[in-house]
Amino acid sequence: METTVVDETLQHVRDLLEVNDVAGAIRLIETLRPADQAEIFDELPEDQQGELFTQLETEDAADILEKLDDEGAAELAARIDADVLAQIVDEMETDEAADLLGDLDPSLSTATLSQLSEPDEIRPLLLHPDETAGGLMTSEYLAFPQSMTVQRVIAALRQWSPKGSETPYLFVVDRDDRIVGVATPLQVIRAEPTQTLASIMDPEVVTVRADADQETTARLMARYDLGAVPVVDEEGRLVGIITSDDLVDVLEGAATEDIQRIAATEPLDRPYLDTSVTRAAWKRLGWLLLLFVTGTLTGTVMRLFENQLDQVITLAVFIPLLIGTGGNAGAQTTATIIRALSVGEIDLGDFVRVLWHEMRTALLLAVLLSLVAFARALFWEDSLEIALVVSGSIFAIVVWANTVGALLPLLAEKLHIDPALVSGPLMSTLVDATGLLIYFSIARLILAI
Amino acid sequence: METTVVDETLQHVRDLLEVNDVAGAIRLIETLRPADQAEIFDELPEDQQGELFTQLETEDAADILEKLDDEGAAELAARIDADVLAQIVDEMETDEAADLLGDLDPSLSTATLSQLSEPDEIRPLLLHPDETAGGLMTSEYLAFPQSMTVQRVIAALRQWSPKGSETPYLFVVDRDDRIVGVATPLQVIRAEPTQTLASIMDPEVVTVRADADQETTARLMARYDLGAVPVVDEEGRLVGIITSDDLVDVLEGAATEDIQRIAATEPLDRPYLDTSVTRAAWKRLGWLLLLFVTGTLTGTVMRLFENQLDQVITLAVFIPLLIGTGGNAGAQTTATIIRALSVGEIDLGDFVRVLWHEMRTALLLAVLLSLVAFARALFWEDSLEIALVVSGSIFAIVVWANTVGALLPLLAEKLHIDPALVSGPLMSTLVDATGLLIYFSIARLILAI
Repeated sequence: METTVVDETLQHVRDLLEVNDVAGAIRLIETLRPADQAEIFDELPEDQQGELFTQLETEDAADILEKLDDEGAAELAARIDADVLAQIVDEMETDEAADLLGDLDPSLSTATLSQLSEPDEIRPLLLHPDETAGGLMTSEYLAFPQSMTVQRVIAALRQWSPKGSETPYLFVVDRDDRIVGVATPLQVIRAEPTQTLASIMDPEVVTVRADADQETTARLMARYDLGAVPVVDEEGRLVGIITSDDLVDVLEGAATEDIQRIAATEPLDRPYLDTSVTRAAWKRLGWLLLLFVTGTLTGTVMRLFENQLDQVITLAVFIPLLIGTGGNAGAQTTATIIRALSVGEIDLGDFVRVLWHEMRTALLLAVLLSLVAFARALFWEDSLEIALVVSGSIFAIVVWANTVGALLPLLAEKLHIDPALVSGPLMSTLVDATGLLIYFSIARLILAI
Repeated sequence: METTVVDETLQHVRDLLEVNDVAGAIRLIETLRPADQAEIFDELPEDQQGELFTQLETEDAADILEKLDDEGAAELAARIDADVLAQIVDEMETDEAADLLGDLDPSLSTATLSQLSEPDEIRPLLLHPDETAGGLMTSEYLAFPQSMTVQRVIAALRQWSPKGSETPYLFVVDRDDRIVGVATPLQVIRAEPTQTLASIMDPEVVTVRADADQETTARLMARYDLGAVPVVDEEGRLVGIITSDDLVDVLEGAATEDIQRIAATEPLDRPYLDTSVTRAAWKRLGWLLLLFVTGTLTGTVMRLFENQLDQVITLAVFIPLLIGTGGNAGAQTTATIIRALSVGEIDLGDFVRVLWHEMRTALLLAVLLSLVAFARALFWEDSLEIALVVSGSIFAIVVWANTVGALLPLLAEKLHIDPALVSGPLMSTLVDATGLLIYFSIARLILAI
């Protein structure tokens, strides 16, 4: 629904630019919400982006830079003079401004920073790595001393006008800036003017350290339904807050990474259509090559048994089926466990329980599938021996694939490697090669070849 | 970090229950946050859950039911008498209460509903399907007429004490309950007492229809950074609001479903360790069987070429490698496109652009991989013909796999089928069988067999 409106507006904008009505295009864009403005911008060719951008109201330009993906924003900003850019950055939310400056060429970044009206709001934010809580936080928040009366808090709130969205919380600090409580604007409204913040605040505040991992932080916010979380330094002093818009971005980004890694491609850092073909190919090539090389393992196994294959060529017929079933069973397990680890449904403490759970699931599936395989093979080749070989192999391969599929992500987690990074591709290669080994060994035994 | 605290407390609770100190266990549990209380409960055996649950403070019991997964909450509630349950449900947030009542046995649900203190808060919520915006909404929200003065709004706010977390917005409605604006508590604080809401509100409000899909709703909230979104009926009248905790649940649930479906397993409706072995096996069996049956397609292709295989047994050696590479290349594309569709980076309007993008990526990858394959095959078999067959097949299979991998999710989207549901498994089966067909056809041509 919303996308249609954007698509239509985009067409109008294009028509207007066609006849050089830049002012008209800008008026049209300015009627939209920031996210939609950014989407339109993203679809325009680079030269038109630059032309339009410098003629927008400063506030709209700031909104668009906030909403574009990081690289897109940096590319657009790089085409503007530092003094104009500084005026726009001045209007941006401080966390977004810091992200942008961090992505710019150092010389442009320094030049822009020096011309900001309040560079000290941004500077401390630049010190934190992108993937930490500190890298997400904004320096625009409300913090008041616990001894402050509601009356004075209200007077202070009347002066406050943030650039970003309003935070739903007021944080309460002691003399050393350490956080001691949290209150909401509604609590302030309900309190008597002479009450102190200490008397109305909730003293139980969830905080995160600035160096905490951003995904851990997002999961914490989601777990406790926090609309914002305060970030503290080593001494427990309040240094910023993380708002809920970052929460969604981080969790969605993490899920996208998991999905791409499970399918053996390096995560794209940008939206799909903004990723160039060479870059997309590059992100996939590494794993394809690695899997190709390890995949030759299966070839090696085949060569070991070329003699047996030559004797009973029928054995070859079942190879894709056996490998496929092993790969499918393993992928089911691996993906399920990776996701359960990601969302925190299981952790390393559940190692044994998970393995036990998977083994029983595997046995059940293996029995059922081997029965089906037996019937299918018998019907196909009309040979009891071949049917026994195939169904025995299916049984062993399914149990083995589920075990490997469960063990790999758990081991990766134990070794502090992203389970999604190694387990998907590794699992299928391992199960392919060992599956063949199982198959031919069983064939040798039963067919006596 | 947080999990460790929960694990430790769980151990203490177990120790206390061991020596029958139920009161001590309850005191300990009550020191925790609701999400942690629910996790502890979830880990306890059913009989202990029941024993503890009825002795908790009503408010804590309500919190735990809110935080347990839907089925776990329903199971726990089913073990309590309707009159006690009604008292607990009275303390729950209305959206969670409606979800719970909807999951209960109809007779218990009706009995509980009739004993609630305010059943009319819940009843309308029960009418909406779970997966719609109406199914997510709560009836606890703030809505005031646009003519109301700030002074009177403040007086009303002082009376309001919701069961759930406070909403960050005040919605403004006209005489027919149609939404005309939105304001925040901070705006109210900043305004003069005699101003009307109409004069301070933001008239641009994003709303959703009660019958809108829940994932579409969540993406809308994420796109426009909404802390809550008002839900309206066909006539545009305000009927409820959706808060941001639902946003995260819906998006995380959608990502989990995508991941599980890409790996060809039906989504588990419950957390991993709460899913029984038979249920887990059942969720996987359908796809495994279907893939097994369609996988016999590859066997059929092999049998077509058994003659050729018998002549050049070396051809068999490369089968797993070729199938594997095709499957990997296809999976990369499919997963990337499914995710891009899910998060709205692309839609059906981009059909041609996506296909063109994938074709070029595929060509680039195919050239590189076929060169590597040529070298590898030459080194392995020392036969120029075989090397040509293998590298030619890799080229064709990679291009084909990427095309199928891009087309399937787009076609599924066009047919209004969940792209994740069909594309992953279908893609690999299709690419396996057709890949073999490509391989043997090329072999026949080059080796003249």
